[in-house]
Amino acid sequence: MDIKPGPLLENINSPADLKKLSKDQMLQVSEELRQFIIDVVSVHGGHFGASLGVVELTVALHYVFNTPYDQLVWDVGHQAYGHKILTGRRDNFVTNRKYQGLSGFPKRSESEYDTFGVGHSSTSISAALGMAMASHYKGEENRQHVAIIGDGAMTAGLAFEGMNHAGIEKSNLLIILNDNCMSIDPNVGALKEYLTDITTSHTFNEVRDGIWKGLGKLPGKNFSRQMAAKIEAGLKGIVSKSSNLFEALNLRYFGPIDGHNVIKLIDTLNDLRDIPGPKLLHIKTVKGKGYQLAEKDQTKWHAPGLFDKVTGEIFKKSFDTPQPIKYQDVFGHTIIELAEKNPAIMGITPAMPSGCSLKFMMEKMPERAFDVGICEQHAVTLSAGLATQGMRVFCNIYSSFMQRAYDMVVHDVAIQKLPVIFCLDRAGLVGEDGPTHHGCYDIAYLRCIPNMVVSAPMDEAELRNLMYTAQLEENMLPFSIRYPRGEGVMPQWRTPMEKIEIGKGRKIKDGEEIAILSFGHPGNFASAAIRELKADGINPAHYDMRFAKPLDEKLLHEVFSKFSKIITIEDGTIVGGFGSAILEFMNAHGYHAEVKIMGIPDRLVEHGTPKQLYAEIGLDAGAIAKNIREMLGIEVRVPVRVIG
Amino acid sequence: MDIKPGPLLENINSPADLKKLSKDQMLQVSEELRQFIIDVVSVHGGHFGASLGVVELTVALHYVFNTPYDQLVWDVGHQAYGHKILTGRRDNFVTNRKYQGLSGFPKRSESEYDTFGVGHSSTSISAALGMAMASHYKGEENRQHVAIIGDGAMTAGLAFEGMNHAGIEKSNLLIILNDNCMSIDPNVGALKEYLTDITTSHTFNEVRDGIWKGLGKLPGKNFSRQMAAKIEAGLKGIVSKSSNLFEALNLRYFGPIDGHNVIKLIDTLNDLRDIPGPKLLHIKTVKGKGYQLAEKDQTKWHAPGLFDKVTGEIFKKSFDTPQPIKYQDVFGHTIIELAEKNPAIMGITPAMPSGCSLKFMMEKMPERAFDVGICEQHAVTLSAGLATQGMRVFCNIYSSFMQRAYDMVVHDVAIQKLPVIFCLDRAGLVGEDGPTHHGCYDIAYLRCIPNMVVSAPMDEAELRNLMYTAQLEENMLPFSIRYPRGEGVMPQWRTPMEKIEIGKGRKIKDGEEIAILSFGHPGNFASAAIRELKADGINPAHYDMRFAKPLDEKLLHEVFSKFSKIITIEDGTIVGGFGSAILEFMNAHGYHAEVKIMGIPDRLVEHGTPKQLYAEIGLDAGAIAKNIREMLGIEVRVPVRVIG
Repeated sequence: MDIKPGPLLENINSPADLKKLSKDQMLQVSEELRQFIIDVVSVHGGHFGASLGVVELTVALHYVFNTPYDQLVWDVGHQAYGHKILTGRRDNFVTNRKYQGLSGFPKRSESEYDTFGVGHSSTSISAALGMAMASHYKGEENRQHVAIIGDGAMTAGLAFEGMNHAGIEKSNLLIILNDNCMSIDPNVGALKEYLTDITTSHTFNEVRDGIWKGLGKLPGKNFSRQMAAKIEAGLKGIVSKSSNLFEALNLRYFGPIDGHNVIKLIDTLNDLRDIPGPKLLHIKTVKGKGYQLAEKDQTKWHAPGLFDKVTGEIFKKSFDTPQPIKYQDVFGHTIIELAEKNPAIMGITPAMPSGCSLKFMMEKMPERAFDVGICEQHAVTLSAGLATQGMRVFCNIYSSFMQRAYDMVVHDVAIQKLPVIFCLDRAGLVGEDGPTHHGCYDIAYLRCIPNMVVSAPMDEAELRNLMYTAQLEENMLPFSIRYPRGEGVMPQWRTPMEKIEIGKGRKIKDGEEIAILSFGHPGNFASAAIRELKADGINPAHYDMRFAKPLDEKLLHEVFSKFSKIITIEDGTIVGGFGSAILEFMNAHGYHAEVKIMGIPDRLVEHGTPKQLYAEIGLDAGAIAKNIREMLGIEVRVPVRVIG
Repeated sequence: MDIKPGPLLENINSPADLKKLSKDQMLQVSEELRQFIIDVVSVHGGHFGASLGVVELTVALHYVFNTPYDQLVWDVGHQAYGHKILTGRRDNFVTNRKYQGLSGFPKRSESEYDTFGVGHSSTSISAALGMAMASHYKGEENRQHVAIIGDGAMTAGLAFEGMNHAGIEKSNLLIILNDNCMSIDPNVGALKEYLTDITTSHTFNEVRDGIWKGLGKLPGKNFSRQMAAKIEAGLKGIVSKSSNLFEALNLRYFGPIDGHNVIKLIDTLNDLRDIPGPKLLHIKTVKGKGYQLAEKDQTKWHAPGLFDKVTGEIFKKSFDTPQPIKYQDVFGHTIIELAEKNPAIMGITPAMPSGCSLKFMMEKMPERAFDVGICEQHAVTLSAGLATQGMRVFCNIYSSFMQRAYDMVVHDVAIQKLPVIFCLDRAGLVGEDGPTHHGCYDIAYLRCIPNMVVSAPMDEAELRNLMYTAQLEENMLPFSIRYPRGEGVMPQWRTPMEKIEIGKGRKIKDGEEIAILSFGHPGNFASAAIRELKADGINPAHYDMRFAKPLDEKLLHEVFSKFSKIITIEDGTIVGGFGSAILEFMNAHGYHAEVKIMGIPDRLVEHGTPKQLYAEIGLDAGAIAKNIREMLGIEVRVPVRVIG
């Protein structure tokens, strides 16, 4: 389907073209840009609501600032579609988030307009401040640096750290606070309430009311009112300045203004451009602006998948037979089952209640399940605090986001041997979100921590069993359970829960000549490879190890006594991961075997569908079968692989 | 030397004893407690200024609150000496920070009064909130939870994340902001300036001035003043409330009050105890209070070592011959040498300018070297931002604190392949600070990141060469250099700097039968072992590998072609570290050798002198020699090891 941009947009190949148009034409450009995003995303997929919310801001920024000399840093970056379209990537935009196409996030290697690669939230202030300090050092005093950050991202500690430093630097830094009350889910926390307060002039009203109250006792009603009106006018500036959280951090505060009024935005940005030093502009926007359904249900329309842009129908695949549900939902339902029996169980998520499906428990047991906002660090230390009081906390964090809380896992949980249960969602390659979101490193970075249990289920039943096991009173240990994004393999997933002894793997099948040791979901790739190899009379043994730490030493002694050819497979990095753990075991016990370590290679893996990416890196059933044939010295057939 | 507590203190064996005394007697208890800390620390060493600054607060807290049922969480914890002394550890306090003695920080396994183990900063609010939420859930509504946090620790993002959540919870949480303007070094950042503003009632004054100005235009001078006075009184409460950063986060703010007035503190805490919900008490204290020299030079007296408490003379070891200086000072002087030639070089430290010796550059080149406060996350992302503009940033962070910035290393630096140079100070076992501060995990957690160079110098000359190499224009890579706390081995350290090819090790000596592969400073332990073994005619080869990533594959092929017995040695965890990298190489290339991996074992190592600890874990020259003899099948002599 051919998607045609509007008549103005079709001639905008760079911000220079935008600047040739009149200010009033920016209204039409905004409309065309919004429509183009709707047209493309409905057919090609991607993040939706966030970019619609900043259409006017995007147009105004590129109209006013001298990009790319002036530098825009988009926080998180899934709102930067308009920015990409205006900066030379309009015709390529249909490849957005597709294998070898445009990244769904700003990316330095993609465009000089993308000043800083993002994906995780709350980095923009620090990054833009770094750019501004470099400009200041070089004497480029007219160069502008703009961080565009949502109110959700503002709750992460990194943003606060950046503001605290920005407030004492002389550099040209403009922070634009894009206040829409939403992350993927609605925002939480005191800051959100505070921003609402500012907007409704609550603080000013309070002060004014105080004055009226003070005046009430004085004689001369009319005179008091007259005076009060004067005081009010005089106070307004002072109070809004002095009462402001951002002013407290020495950032000049402007706003709030309507983020959908492109003319007002252009005028304001023009004014702010000439004010040196660190400053913050607070704009109010609506996530999903201009697409009614998206405005109404902002979580659903954050990244809806493909849809009919006219009717708003979101397309779902349909199947004739029952299909496996997502691992996420297995987690979400299972924690409730467990919590119904164990009153000590609580659930914590940092801003991913929909993504990780803790939302089910939050609805059913609101006093025991909490979305704490975008603050992985706090989520983990809070969980540790709860654990000191005997609570059994399931702290659910995406693998790549857990990197944010690494010190808290070491310092607050593992060193104290507190029994927090970490559910590491989005482990392995996540697909279209790309390298910032792939969960590649957690096996390596958790395995090196003393006291930490590192586990991964091969299927839904095992996820349930591991969750059950982790919360048993006999198992008071820091316990991590990693599983991938998306569907499992069991249509009938609600299996009875059984205890698994910590550090015990299982033999899935006996075999000859070669053994596969799998960790987690990729065990299913191994099973598929084994089925494929059966036709050739090849019969590998297969062990689902379940734990990368502690290892099942008994089982491994059995394996290494019997086999001298071994394949290890995991959906994590091959550097220091599960495969390395096996090598460490071998070495410690003097075994010599030929070991092929299959996992995510030690390089960045870009975006695409998981299937494409796993094929690219050679981590699928076909690659396993090929490796086995090679190791057995059997002629390798040319693999026929369908990508897509 | 026998240290005797004062007459009241000597009978206080728990807070219950404290509570038997009158409120007025708390003045004397405070004096005795202060004197006891001075007496013990001057003779036995430890942190000094921080605990002196909170003597009155400590006494007041235990006098007012029902500890340990009520829960105190000390942030960082080096200020908790008074707390330890009052809670049953007075007579043991002479063992503070000594091998197998008391920990220098609160520690759950040491006392039920230590509710949460600390060492790293800014965890207290999140941890105490977790405890408070657990109490709320259990219906223990009268239970109190107090986080005591310094203004320095307040700048870390985790503290902000904790406050942002606390503001929307109903739990009983009291945050005591111990405002002394100091971390180890003076605090920086906008928050610090803001706290000074509050204290001087700046904000209130501004509002009041605004009113006067507004009234100036009205007739009736006397009347205006009279009215203004009334308004002032009415406004004071409202303004101080609404103008407050903490109130903006929905925490009820009280203070600031004098933190050295124990009676006032007791009265205030008694009042606050009855106010439910989250609240913050701001107290002003002086670090080092009561010991004049410590008050005057707070950085020097943060942890002065042993001293004459009467004269204030700090004892230094003296030597007849030139001694090696600290690696820290080698870094501090070398970065200046490099920066004098390369104008793109900058230096960043998060709150450790004295500890890491960046202070030299900050004095000499204030526009190019920055202490950004306690905010490791920001320090790294800021460095990444600077790097995008061509700056060559040396970002110096302690190994264990770098855990705080792990995501920024992955997401902002490595994924973008930005050439930030990380100097990881305090790598290996740090000694008396214990498990929270040991730098055990960095080799493992950095080695798994694509694009990251992981290096470690064996001596001062190599540190200088690695620093020189890292900033060369041909080497635009994320580059980490790890080195231990304390002295190196070269009295003449100011060697000419030479380029080292990235990923190239060096052969220190040829040998027979067995080869030692060392990474970093422990190569010196290997050299000592080799000297010891010479007498027995044992002649191991020794390779200083310099890089754990990328490995010197050429050199390793040479090693594994020649030797079938190998010892690897590193001062990092044996799980996933340098030794595992060697195993991965062996496996990939089909080598079979007997490898002994020497490093920090996969368990927590407690505190003590580095010498004691390295002896305990078997990572010193004696242990290397012993392993070599064992691997060669030579009779092992009973090792004579002096501990101390």
